[in-house]
This record gives sequence, structure tokens and C-alpha cells, in this order.
Amino acid sequence: MWRVMETPLNCAEEQQPPPAFPASWSTVTPQESPADRNDKGNAVGFVLVHAGAGYHSESKAKEYKHVCKRACQRAVDRLKAGALAVDAVTAALVELEDSPFTNAGMGSNLNLSGEIECDASIMDGKSLRYGAVGAVSGINNPVLVANRLLSEAQKGKLSAGRIPPCFLVGRGAHDWAVNHGIPPCPSEKMATKFSLSAYKRNKHKMELAEKVDTGFNHHSKKRRQASETENGSGLLDTVGAIVVDREGNVAAAVSSGGLAMKHPGRVGQAAHHGCGCWAENTSTLNPYSTAVSTSGSPFLASEDCVLGGVIVLRCCRCSDAQPSPDIQAILVEFLWSHTTESMCVGYMSAQDGKAKTHISRLPPGAVAGQSLAIEGGVCRLVNTPTTVD
Amino acid sequence: MWRVMETPLNCAEEQQPPPAFPASWSTVTPQESPADRNDKGNAVGFVLVHAGAGYHSESKAKEYKHVCKRACQRAVDRLKAGALAVDAVTAALVELEDSPFTNAGMGSNLNLSGEIECDASIMDGKSLRYGAVGAVSGINNPVLVANRLLSEAQKGKLSAGRIPPCFLVGRGAHDWAVNHGIPPCPSEKMATKFSLSAYKRNKHKMELAEKVDTGFNHHSKKRRQASETENGSGLLDTVGAIVVDREGNVAAAVSSGGLAMKHPGRVGQAAHHGCGCWAENTSTLNPYSTAVSTSGSPFLASEDCVLGGVIVLRCCRCSDAQPSPDIQAILVEFLWSHTTESMCVGYMSAQDGKAKTHISRLPPGAVAGQSLAIEGGVCRLVNTPTTVD
Repeated sequence: MWRVMETPLNCAEEQQPPPAFPASWSTVTPQESPADRNDKGNAVGFVLVHAGAGYHSESKAKEYKHVCKRACQRAVDRLKAGALAVDAVTAALVELEDSPFTNAGMGSNLNLSGEIECDASIMDGKSLRYGAVGAVSGINNPVLVANRLLSEAQKGKLSAGRIPPCFLVGRGAHDWAVNHGIPPCPSEKMATKFSLSAYKRNKHKMELAEKVDTGFNHHSKKRRQASETENGSGLLDTVGAIVVDREGNVAAAVSSGGLAMKHPGRVGQAAHHGCGCWAENTSTLNPYSTAVSTSGSPFLASEDCVLGGVIVLRCCRCSDAQPSPDIQAILVEFLWSHTTESMCVGYMSAQDGKAKTHISRLPPGAVAGQSLAIEGGVCRLVNTPTTVD
Repeated sequence: MWRVMETPLNCAEEQQPPPAFPASWSTVTPQESPADRNDKGNAVGFVLVHAGAGYHSESKAKEYKHVCKRACQRAVDRLKAGALAVDAVTAALVELEDSPFTNAGMGSNLNLSGEIECDASIMDGKSLRYGAVGAVSGINNPVLVANRLLSEAQKGKLSAGRIPPCFLVGRGAHDWAVNHGIPPCPSEKMATKFSLSAYKRNKHKMELAEKVDTGFNHHSKKRRQASETENGSGLLDTVGAIVVDREGNVAAAVSSGGLAMKHPGRVGQAAHHGCGCWAENTSTLNPYSTAVSTSGSPFLASEDCVLGGVIVLRCCRCSDAQPSPDIQAILVEFLWSHTTESMCVGYMSAQDGKAKTHISRLPPGAVAGQSLAIEGGVCRLVNTPTTVD
């Protein structure tokens, strides 16, 4: 049973500016009997997705919110059917990749050679296992390969004691996927009219820039350039999702077509263990289960302007909030933040009729935060927002 | 000026078993004048290398120690010529890769298709920049590509504001390297008689195993299998090096041919940001500069038997140990540890005539540690060894 306790902040209408501190506590009660798992009344689980941190024009906002809504629904459908977090998060990602509007799978950015090369990774908080693909072409759902690498590794060693791969790149990743029943997709079907025309525009811009040597390294121009690129191509960086299931397991996943005009073979943070996503169930050392999915430039230590976004979820068993002595409640906290102009997010619990979606427009450089308290069986949101420029 | 203060533990003869707690304090005094940098008397810097954690037969021990010695010498030659840590660590790695006996560059393990695909990465503690290649074929010094990616990124953005790559894989990595003046090497020249015969043996073993389905996933067999594989092929996992230069900058690098019979496109930890190596100069928050290079299976959370090795270096400015008020001393601590049967290490300061090398044979599963104290201008080693099975 879900008891979703949201502050008015989280009930903002979609057409209004999103809340500056979009976070919520929810209480998940794990089902007692697997036989009940198809009963909507007892459906348990939660999903938070994003369709990219970058720039979302008003005209495209509807499309992005729709795809977030569908992604949440897909994950919840899987949770209701009894699936665990890893499978639900994969289902959400497939929907995000299938949209021609996101920079993941279908419709991804083209690289310098006019090809699509995708990165994706997934992590299971229960086993701490991880699966990833980098710079893979001709696969329209890279997250399915990451998921399959994870599940194959869980079966144990290969013949003659060989350790199964968890991270495959390029041609090898493509061939492994096809050998494991994941259908290839001709590259020309993965590009859209939109991504092709963005490629031509970017190529032209690059040639011009190389001719006139306009001093593109000047610091003052960096942020403006980044905005222009995203605006011009309309393509965002990464999509991601995080899930908690009925057993309290968490999982996280991320998928990206990478930077427009990147060098062939470039692998971004979406494929990097510990960079693109993280999921870790509660343990004796750690009272919270945590799942995170990030979007943005990798390896930012030396960048003067960091453009990125993040979705975060943490949950714990809470004896104070137990509906009855036999049933232990799980408390779920989630939030998002971004330094880009906008970020499209959606979230849904297994008991909700439909997902909530926002085009979040936090001020540039702002960070949103909050503190929480649980008192006498009630989860109370103690909102102490901090905004740092 | 170097004042190397070693305990008797570190003066073990090469033919003797290596010390269980191989660590040492050294004092580096930065040069005051760049004009002195070719003066051997004032040469400053330190390098620690390893040629692989795994199994070293007595008959091969000499070869491994020789290559460690040469790698240290190469790094020290660069340091004496005024090079910074990043270039010195690259020079050490090139020597380790060029040896047909190490599983890096020349003579690397062959993958399932009988090809060589290498991983390598490098990190600069001063800028915190990182460069890496994964699953790259036809380049006999992958570390040169990682180094070049790092140095190209330091030049700033590419035309039209594009972010330069820091991690390239597969064919894209190969092409980028060749376009940046790194000579390709025909794959057949990178394989050795030794690696080819190991490949044939492993292939045969695999085919046999797949025929008879001998239950290779049984836990009790894992460690033994791992030993047999390393023993049989004679090939170890990874090579690495860490360096501190005259300015107190640290750098770390790692290079690997990866697992024998790995799937094409498999990328191991040697190419992973934050996995294969790390280097970070001192900062206001951090009194020590630190450099680390690791060897072993990646993503070990679920493995019941972790086989790996590590070399570590940390250093700090020490006012107590100053030779004069004008010159500030740097204290250097270094150590290594491994859970494999053996690990070949070498180390050398810029004032040493030659490197010291050891085939370290710590007991399986043992961890070596120590504490240190600095008193009244003298660095004193307070050895409080702990061994944990």
C-alpha cells in the first residue's frame, strides 16, 4: 500500500513553473503476499524519470512531458506485474530511448562522421552489479544490452572459468547484443529528419569556425555557446530513471547518444561505472537504499561552467510509520536538481492513476535541497530550502 | 636533494622473499632553480611501478624485475631532464608496455577472436584531468594515446565550442591516435609466440569445458581456476606506475591487455575513470598529494574471491624536515599490496643509481599496512603491521 504524502510544492500544475524544491516523502508498504501482486490496491513501487537536462523550448515541452509520462507508466506496469526494480527501470528507459525527441536510442545526436553511437548503463542496488555499453551503433535500445550484460553476469562464470563482461563497447558490444537476441536496427532508421538537419547545421558551423578561428576558447563565451548548441539542435544530453520496488530494492539506469559532433569512439559518463548512475540497497552500514541517475558533461574537475542534472531517490524501512505491527513501511524521498536552463522530469507511484511531469526551470547554477523528519508515525517534510548561485 | 630513509624491510635482497610491509618514507627537496635540473646531485622525483599482480614463476622473475628496473630508469631520466610527473609516468608505462612479458601493449592477452584490444588511462594530479582508451587495437603503446588525449584536452575546446574527448574506444580511438601522430602497429606484430600459444591452449580448454560442462561455477574451484589460468598463460593482469616530480605534482597511469579470452569490445578497469588509477595534488582541503594505480578484476562487489594489487604513493610538504629555511621538503610514503600470489614492483628516486625491484609474495588474502610519524625534522617509520586473512 502506498501512502503518498506530498507537500503543495509537488502538486504544481504542469503549465506552471515547476517548484524550486521538488521533493516528496512517500511511504511504501511492501506486500505481504506475492499472490496479491496484480492487485492494484496493493501495488507497490515508485519511479522517477528524466528526459534530459538542457534546454526545452515551450513548443517541445509537451512532447517531453508525454514521453516522461509514458516511461513512468511502463515502469509501473512492470512493478504491478511483480517485476523487480531492475526490470522496471529498464522498461522506463526503453520508452525514453524510443522517443525521437530524446538524445538516447532513436533520434540520438550524430557524431563527427554522421553516425549514432550510444552509451547506456544500469545498476542493481541489491547485487551491486552493473552493466554498460559504450559507443555502440545499430542498437536502438542500448539499455537492453546493459540490462542483459547485468543479468548474464548474475548467472556466474562462463566456460573455463572466464569472467563474464559487464562493459562492452563498439562493434563487440553490437555483436554480443545480437548474439543474445537483441535485434539490430539499421543506423539510417535511428536518425531522424531532425537529427540529420542538426548534423548538417553543426557541420557547417564547425567548418565556418575552423576557417575564421574566432577564438572559441574564451571563457566568457562558454555558457552562451553551450546554450546555443542545445537550442540549435534541440537535443539534450541524457535520459535516466530510478526505481524502488515492492521489496525495497532500488535500481538506476541512464542512456545517452552523447555530444553532438563527438569524435567516433567517444564514451561519455552514461557508460561509466559510478558516473552515470548508482544504486545501492540498504545494508548494515547504510540505513538508506539510494538510487541516482545523472546527466551532464563527464569529468568536470577542470570545467569552469558545469552543465548537468541529477535525479535522486533514497528510502528506508521506518518502524514509526508502520500501518500495522506485521507490515513494515518504507519511506521514499526523491528530488532532482540541474544547472542547465531546464530539465524534464516525471514520477509516479504504483498506486497513482498517472504520472506527474514538470519542465523544471531552476535558476542557472542553483542547487535545491531539503531536510526531513519522521515523528510519531507521521512523515513530515521539513523544508529548509537552500539556493546557492 | 633526496634523503631516502628506508627501514631494513625495504633493503631485502632481490632473491629473498619480499617484505610483508614494503613501505618507505623519502624526503624530496624541490629544486630551487630550473637551471639545476640536469644536475644529478639536485635531481628530484620518485617513481613506483609494477609489472602485474598475478603469478610469477621463478623462471620469469628475472625478466619482470628487469622490465620494472628499466621502467623506473625511463621515468627518472625524464624527471632529470625536467619533465613533470605526467610525462615521467608515461615514459615508465611505455617501457612496461614494450616488454613482451607483460600483459600490456606488446604481448598482451588475445581476446576470444584472437585479437589484441588494450585499455589504458592516465591521470594528472595537478589539473585532475584524465585520458583513457578502451578496447583499442593496432596501437602498441596505448598509454601514449591516453597521455595525448589528456594533453589535447588541456588545450581547451575544439572548433565550434566542442568538448574534446577524454575517453575513446575501439576503432575511433585507433583513428584518433593515428591522426595525432601516434604510429599504428600491425596486430600480428603485437602478438608473441607466447601469447599465441596461450591463446590456442585457452581455446582448447574452453572447447573442452563447453563439451563436458564440468560445473565451473562452483565456488570452491574459483581461486584454483584463476591460478591455473594465470599459471597456464603466464600472463598477468595490468601494469602501472605512479610518480611525484620536483614540483610535488603526482601522476598515475595504468595499462592492460585485459583478460585472456575476453569478449571483443570488453573494457576493463584500466580504462575506467576512478578505477584503474587516481592522482590528486594537495589542496586546501587535502594535506596530501596522492597517486594510486590498481590491478585486478573490475567491479568486484559480488565476487567471492578478489584478486588484485595496488601501488600507492602519498606526499606532503613537511616544514619539520626542511634542510634550510629556504627549501621546503616533501615527504613521500609509498606501499604496495596484493591478494594474488605475487606482484612484481620496482621503485627509484631521481638520486638513486638504479631501481630496487621485488617479486612480492604476500600470503593470499593478506593486507599490509603501517603508521608513520614525523618528529623534530626526522621522518620515523612507526611500523604497526596488520595482517588480515
